[in-house]
Amino acid sequence: MKALLAGGLPCAEVTFRTPAALEAIRAIAQIPGMLVGAGTVLKPEQAQAAADAGAQFIVTPGFNPRVVGSCVSHGIPITPGVSDPTSIEMALEHGLDVVKFFPAEACGGLPYLKAIAGPYSMMRFIPTGGIEPGNLCDYLAFPKVVACGGTWMVKADLLKNRDWAKITTLTREAVTLANSGKK
Amino acid sequence: MKALLAGGLPCAEVTFRTPAALEAIRAIAQIPGMLVGAGTVLKPEQAQAAADAGAQFIVTPGFNPRVVGSCVSHGIPITPGVSDPTSIEMALEHGLDVVKFFPAEACGGLPYLKAIAGPYSMMRFIPTGGIEPGNLCDYLAFPKVVACGGTWMVKADLLKNRDWAKITTLTREAVTLANSGKK
Amino acid sequence: MKALLAGGLPCAEVTFRTPAALEAIRAIAQIPGMLVGAGTVLKPEQAQAAADAGAQFIVTPGFNPRVVGSCVSHGIPITPGVSDPTSIEMALEHGLDVVKFFPAEACGGLPYLKAIAGPYSMMRFIPTGGIEPGNLCDYLAFPKVVACGGTWMVKADLLKNRDWAKITTLTREAVTLANSGKK
Repeated sequence: MKALLAGGLPCAEVTFRTPAALEAIRAIAQIPGMLVGAGTVLKPEQAQAAADAGAQFIVTPGFNPRVVGSCVSHGIPITPGVSDPTSIEMALEHGLDVVKFFPAEACGGLPYLKAIAGPYSMMRFIPTGGIEPGNLCDYLAFPKVVACGGTWMVKADLLKNRDWAKITTLTREAVTLANSGKK
Repeated sequence: MKALLAGGLPCAEVTFRTPAALEAIRAIAQIPGMLVGAGTVLKPEQAQAAADAGAQFIVTPGFNPRVVGSCVSHGIPITPGVSDPTSIEMALEHGLDVVKFFPAEACGGLPYLKAIAGPYSMMRFIPTGGIEPGNLCDYLAFPKVVACGGTWMVKADLLKNRDWAKITTLTREAVTLANSGKK
Repeated sequence: MKALLAGGLPCAEVTFRTPAALEAIRAIAQIPGMLVGAGTVLKPEQAQAAADAGAQFIVTPGFNPRVVGSCVSHGIPITPGVSDPTSIEMALEHGLDVVKFFPAEACGGLPYLKAIAGPYSMMRFIPTGGIEPGNLCDYLAFPKVVACGGTWMVKADLLKNRDWAKITTLTREAVTLANSGKK
């Protein structure tokens, strides 16, 4: 997280894909200036536990009305995953105006996002899944995209080798790229 | 609308994408021989207001059970958007046998429609989204397609230039094309 | 069924796409060693009737909460169709850990399955729709795939010609292929 911060990216999503998620969130929440969220949240209890540990936002892969409903009623910021008009309308019904578009590239990429976003003038999107330096700016140039999620600056081998300098370099390049592309 | 009518297409969908939708529906409903519907309907109140204004059918981009349930219980013809088997089954549960297939081209086109339509022998489809002269007849040739929606005869620049003659010409060509393709 | 059995495939899904489905299930359930299931199940009543006739599992094309809920509460094994993260989460909410991935090829194939399966470490998949000898082993090599469904060994012309020997040959080849590909 300090390598990300040094690279100019003070935000991260920690997914509930390992038993270490909650502990990681708790540790990151102590770092001044970092915004940490919890991802791959599949149950209301996980969302609550993540928020208690210091997560400031919740992300889910698909739209689960129980998870979303619980977060909304507890005032926990929630960005559920959607990939079709029906799930976008579920988000609208819950009063949301920002959703995650997942899996972005695998389900049709930017042309598909533009097609499903068309009828929903009030909805904004955060594409994740397959985002990389080569397509980041294309997504960000679409006015309904408010952010993108990606992992290319913290790949497993970099973490394994504890190559913090490389992570900071890749992060800085990502931030520069994102800033250049958002016209 | 008169240009459409002159071209042989006495049917139109007015979408709730501008504040003028309701007024437009009300005006069109006064034109003898025109069938007017409301599209991009996202709330039950919009469906009711559209019906009160003279809309004879309701179209939605995705499947919203509240909107569909309200229309069904009030006897308002409703064609909700679907794009996968799960949303088709939601339509079946509400007693519907015609749905919109949206976004037709962006979510896989005719091959994808044939794949998801396979298990649902009783369901008929109205593809919209990416329909144009080049693929209209392919869609119409699929027996489970009862109609297609498209906008190529009323593009923004034609409306802006008030080029009613051109709209009528394009409409007549579209009608001729559709009739030729529906074997 | 005896031709399948002779070819080494003691399992079949009979779909509710003809009025003969129930009678067929009842007859197959009498064949020792055959595992028979019902497919294209769209209503709870069909699932119950199929189970009463001897079906040992239920398959659906999309996710219908009423059908799944009824099967779960009656202890009938159910494999509902899913094609996106939201429907996978519906399955999780109902306590399921195996779902059908349908229509497999038309909705994006193996790359798309890998993308949507990523966040759901506990979920296993049975791809159907477009599976054939050319892609069977690729699907089976993905550890989250526990089985595939296909029809290439019982095509309509073989049934029409009552060519049981050919069905047995194709079935034996399919079984050999599946065993070779599952490393």
